[in-house]
Amino acid sequence: MDLSLKPAATAVDAVRGTLAEHFGDRLQSGTSFCEQHANTATGRGTQAPDMVVWPETTQEVSLIARTCWEQGVPLIPFGAGSSLEGQLNAPLGGVSVDMSRMDSLREVLAEDLIAVVGPGLTRKRLNEELRHTGLQFPIDPGADASIGGMCATRASGTNAVRYGTMAENVLALEVVMADGTIIRTGTRAVKSAAGYDLTRLMIGSEATLGIITEITLRLRGIPEETIGGVAGFPDLQSACAAVIIMVQIGLDIGRVELLDPVQIRACNAYSGLTLPEVPTLFFECGGTDASARDTARIFTEIAEEEGALSIEWTAAREARNKLWQARHDSYWAALALRPGCKGLVSDACVPISKLAESIAEARADLDARGLTGTILGHVGDGNFHVVLMTDPEDMDEAAQVADFLKGISRRAQAVGGTCTGEHGIGQGKITSLADEAGASLAVMRAVKAALDPRNILNPGKLFGDLA
Amino acid sequence: MDLSLKPAATAVDAVRGTLAEHFGDRLQSGTSFCEQHANTATGRGTQAPDMVVWPETTQEVSLIARTCWEQGVPLIPFGAGSSLEGQLNAPLGGVSVDMSRMDSLREVLAEDLIAVVGPGLTRKRLNEELRHTGLQFPIDPGADASIGGMCATRASGTNAVRYGTMAENVLALEVVMADGTIIRTGTRAVKSAAGYDLTRLMIGSEATLGIITEITLRLRGIPEETIGGVAGFPDLQSACAAVIIMVQIGLDIGRVELLDPVQIRACNAYSGLTLPEVPTLFFECGGTDASARDTARIFTEIAEEEGALSIEWTAAREARNKLWQARHDSYWAALALRPGCKGLVSDACVPISKLAESIAEARADLDARGLTGTILGHVGDGNFHVVLMTDPEDMDEAAQVADFLKGISRRAQAVGGTCTGEHGIGQGKITSLADEAGASLAVMRAVKAALDPRNILNPGKLFGDLA
Repeated sequence: MDLSLKPAATAVDAVRGTLAEHFGDRLQSGTSFCEQHANTATGRGTQAPDMVVWPETTQEVSLIARTCWEQGVPLIPFGAGSSLEGQLNAPLGGVSVDMSRMDSLREVLAEDLIAVVGPGLTRKRLNEELRHTGLQFPIDPGADASIGGMCATRASGTNAVRYGTMAENVLALEVVMADGTIIRTGTRAVKSAAGYDLTRLMIGSEATLGIITEITLRLRGIPEETIGGVAGFPDLQSACAAVIIMVQIGLDIGRVELLDPVQIRACNAYSGLTLPEVPTLFFECGGTDASARDTARIFTEIAEEEGALSIEWTAAREARNKLWQARHDSYWAALALRPGCKGLVSDACVPISKLAESIAEARADLDARGLTGTILGHVGDGNFHVVLMTDPEDMDEAAQVADFLKGISRRAQAVGGTCTGEHGIGQGKITSLADEAGASLAVMRAVKAALDPRNILNPGKLFGDLA
Repeated sequence: MDLSLKPAATAVDAVRGTLAEHFGDRLQSGTSFCEQHANTATGRGTQAPDMVVWPETTQEVSLIARTCWEQGVPLIPFGAGSSLEGQLNAPLGGVSVDMSRMDSLREVLAEDLIAVVGPGLTRKRLNEELRHTGLQFPIDPGADASIGGMCATRASGTNAVRYGTMAENVLALEVVMADGTIIRTGTRAVKSAAGYDLTRLMIGSEATLGIITEITLRLRGIPEETIGGVAGFPDLQSACAAVIIMVQIGLDIGRVELLDPVQIRACNAYSGLTLPEVPTLFFECGGTDASARDTARIFTEIAEEEGALSIEWTAAREARNKLWQARHDSYWAALALRPGCKGLVSDACVPISKLAESIAEARADLDARGLTGTILGHVGDGNFHVVLMTDPEDMDEAAQVADFLKGISRRAQAVGGTCTGEHGIGQGKITSLADEAGASLAVMRAVKAALDPRNILNPGKLFGDLA
């Protein structure tokens, strides 16, 4: 990391002075504020910004950007702090722009299945506020992330097999560019062929091209009936084979998640489940009463053909919620297997035909290295995670973990997959992105240089040399 | 149009000389070849390129780009010639790059629901070649477009309400950049959070950022059962109201198309149907036998509640195909209403709650101007088309048509929609794009300037000043 790129202290002070004048005590420079606004969710190290500011309007975000632009000082938007690849770290210092006060549900257009939200609104609160409408925003990365952060990292999660990722569920954005210019991308129409798809360019750009200040989301009707199921399998291969068949025949899967025996053990202990410790699919389907039942019936047939040891179904809301809450808590459940440790999570996504072998290789590598980890996956899209419980003080183990994670990415890329299905690049996968992108990395850099020529937007992420 | 931007004749000759050496009689400069490779599908004027070249490999496309880059000569990829907004015209001359020889189905990964194709492969031939696999590529813009062209214009069509547009159905691209560099975007994983979404940046860029030379597509299983229906309504409002309810409750619509009474009259005459001349929905749903029937039952209930005059269902393949072939032929059916005329097609897409009023306004404006036109729409996504039958020799009528089309775009934008749902900007909607994009147009231009600084890729499209 080339620290000569750090802005001069005088530039940082100039930004602080200008912003303090406008923001008053909505600007803070204390160490604890600053450290809370860097990476906190994982075992990755913390690099704190120089100050934190809480804007309340797009105009205020524009003022922050203009001020930073003039002085060449970095700025890093902060949502809910749940990113996993160090996206919030400030290797060159600068300004953390905390979006938590821009968290309103600004508009619901129920007839058009559209909601307009501030970037700081979290997905759980959005769905609470939508409850009376019969509509939902189904993208569900597990953590109660902010919608702005979910856009920035192109998040997805358990519902993506049915509803897609953030890329398929954002219609329009308001974005503050590096120099403070405010633009709008997209429209309220569900599709458009009008020029470059700047919405999708911004989604997944990890705040290196612009700061998202408003999001127009697609909503979905809550299905009339939802049925949940759990199926245990004798081995990984048969669980994956069942999912492959479901995807191939176009079965209307709501979500389908794989948990390996170690993860099941963790969930049993953490969430009070009593599942057999075997490779297990959590499954959910929704629709009309008849279609949901039909889907469940076909799931059962396929699972039985692939040798499922047990299949249980429930349409009861409470039982389903308990299961999915356990799935969502699986990161914490995994960490509880080794108290006092920190978590690091891999995020490969492979063509579904390669999933079983990819997971088996990951397990073999884990065991060969003597690392503690659980495996779980959004198997409907070939995305799986290894949750590693690591002792950050143990340098030998840290090196093993780093090698293990690189191996996961490399093997995924070798079978035509990607080093990240939904967590993004951040600081953690810069070399993996370079490997994966090849000659297209230069195109990404050209876009970055064109839209942020002073490299003030979240520097040190995606690309290796802080550019 | 600033024709001083035309390359010097010596530059064009230099390109011709270099390419002739490599391509032999796969390079043609004759007037008829050149005119066939400009706009031909609509009443819009024709601007022919200086030469046409037929590459067979990505390396050959790269050679063409490098040659044009060195001499500053425009190049314009040509797929099937079915674009509707003048995307293929060559206002500054240059090289038409005919992709028809790069038309192979290169790979089918049935387990992963993936096909890898050359850009010149047409969608109908792709589906013929896939037939034995039980898989399909469902994106269906009506015309037998090339897959490369469908990427370039972000095409969609009748199946988009269920399967999305090209943006949701392309996993990866190989692209030749302006200077001849070959890049790959995306992977074979169904989702990725690895850096900027260059795949989606290229899709819809109308060949102004790069030339697509290979496409990795998502395929879908052909549903076990498909049921088709036709429902006549007393008025537009009730037909649209029925569709709005279906979308809101999340009914698993395959496709739902609206045809206005004039279009029904045209289809009856052209395709030998005998439908009542009233606002009519063509509907299709697929799934398991039980779920398709359930969807059809719910459609019937909703349509009846909204006052449908008649509803007929069929699961017979032949009857369904006749109906959808008539829908696909509706452009030609409309033209046949006024023999000897040319067609121009509007393409607004609005939030679905605005659809009925948008269509009614379009019809009122048509009638007030004394223009001949039919209206049909992919109503599930709020996208509707007016097919105008125009006499290009009649200058007064041409002015009326131009005003009418501008009004359609302007009204769509005023209700939060877009001037183009699926046909793109080309030359036809340059001012509409500028209106719609506002401050984001400068961002589009910055991306264009960064990736094609010599402005050789399809100049004169999207932006007003040939840049």
